[in-house]
Amino acid sequence: MTRIHSGRTPGAAPRKAVPKKKLFVASYGLTPVAQMTFESIDALRSCGVVYSGSVDAMTTKSVHGLGIPLVSLANPGPCGLLEKVLRAFKKNDRVGVLFYGNPLFLNQQMSELLHAVSRLAEVEVVPGVSSFDMLINLFGMTRLSEKGLFIADLNFFMEDPKFTPGPDIFFFAPFRLNAPDCGKFKAGFIKALSGKYARRFPAYLVKCDSNPARVEVIKGCMSCLPALMERCGKQHTLVIFSEGRLSSIDNPPPWLRFTARSVCDCDQRPAGPVRPARPSRQP
Amino acid sequence: MTRIHSGRTPGAAPRKAVPKKKLFVASYGLTPVAQMTFESIDALRSCGVVYSGSVDAMTTKSVHGLGIPLVSLANPGPCGLLEKVLRAFKKNDRVGVLFYGNPLFLNQQMSELLHAVSRLAEVEVVPGVSSFDMLINLFGMTRLSEKGLFIADLNFFMEDPKFTPGPDIFFFAPFRLNAPDCGKFKAGFIKALSGKYARRFPAYLVKCDSNPARVEVIKGCMSCLPALMERCGKQHTLVIFSEGRLSSIDNPPPWLRFTARSVCDCDQRPAGPVRPARPSRQP
Repeated sequence: MTRIHSGRTPGAAPRKAVPKKKLFVASYGLTPVAQMTFESIDALRSCGVVYSGSVDAMTTKSVHGLGIPLVSLANPGPCGLLEKVLRAFKKNDRVGVLFYGNPLFLNQQMSELLHAVSRLAEVEVVPGVSSFDMLINLFGMTRLSEKGLFIADLNFFMEDPKFTPGPDIFFFAPFRLNAPDCGKFKAGFIKALSGKYARRFPAYLVKCDSNPARVEVIKGCMSCLPALMERCGKQHTLVIFSEGRLSSIDNPPPWLRFTARSVCDCDQRPAGPVRPARPSRQP
Repeated sequence: MTRIHSGRTPGAAPRKAVPKKKLFVASYGLTPVAQMTFESIDALRSCGVVYSGSVDAMTTKSVHGLGIPLVSLANPGPCGLLEKVLRAFKKNDRVGVLFYGNPLFLNQQMSELLHAVSRLAEVEVVPGVSSFDMLINLFGMTRLSEKGLFIADLNFFMEDPKFTPGPDIFFFAPFRLNAPDCGKFKAGFIKALSGKYARRFPAYLVKCDSNPARVEVIKGCMSCLPALMERCGKQHTLVIFSEGRLSSIDNPPPWLRFTARSVCDCDQRPAGPVRPARPSRQP
């Protein structure tokens, strides 16, 4: 048996090797405070100070009400947050950071912070409800399809968008393709995606929310994908369902609560070459 | 715009259309009580009765301490649980069911129950921390790989295991292949998997737990996959990492806390045909 890596001095008793200082990385899920877990609250309460760059005044007040010494930072960026955390460890043995969703999911800025902090403190990540969990529940995906589920983050997937059609697919952060310097990648992605499916195969833009009234499910198809992409906000996921799932999305069982809104008029258009997409930016 | 399905009578005001009776589907995450969220607790407290088939005596006591009228059922099965819930709605307007993990993720038995219940009650699913979230955090997957992440449930994927190598891959429920009637599918799956990777490409069996001391990461390779599969317990996930991720798994940053235990001695074996796997069932 090979111990590949333990994070501890080999042979040392675990308790002695644990550094005194500790960083807790926790979350309020997708709905501030309502989706916090007991273990997140306990961990953050034990800290001398907790930082978050993603809470508004009302959330801050609610978190304070839980006995958590939260300090709200306005858009600190990875460096700003790291600086605050490192400075806080001079006065505190336990420091916390509070995020949206499952703390490490789609949160690349954490790598640098955790790497820097781990030189002087142990790191404990407390899991939270993620956008992945919300999507699974929203569409009643009690079983994965026979062809599985593929997920990708367009921040990293856009340059070489190779994938096999068939599974359910969640493309996170599609809004990134609308950046002015991503035109080439956007065109490549749309070509890669629409080239793998029939012209009228549905595509959905989905915004999750724990309040059903705020959930958004916008339906388009491969032919109108360029126009659909123009509607992407920061919180949207582009979802392509497996063929097996599609029937239960178009005719959902009565216990599913979403309403899909079609923005596709491709069936009403005259046959012929695909018209260029009309920009129709979301308000 | 086409309203595909709303679950409400078309044209009716939403509030009037909501049935009086309601089923809450909630979770205690992966660590009983510690990973419950406020919204789960609030929802279940409002119920006349809450059923769970996956709680022990200590968890039941803790849940009672939260003011939740939990009734523990010993292995009720989907029909047993459905019968209890339907009967409970005769006396109660609000009934709850309490599960492990994110309530709908990898939980096919829910479909039938929700379908039956939705004839007489509205259904609200309250999200919870899932094994997916735990895996993301365990391996520090703060970003998805350039090739994405593929997940499949071997309950449904085993018959036709087609996938493209390259992404990170989570195969859930690999223990299912060890069932006596699944020998053919197991052989097919091992062939499909090992045929797509180099002989020494690593494969991991992973059991998540919020207590780091109980986390299990067992490392094998494609050559010893048959022996590795024999070690699958019900809670294991078979994980194949993308090439880009592998280096950070073999040399993890200091803030990652898992210890991988190699059970592979393929490099020590003489070159030649792959030996048949020795059965070494897990206790």
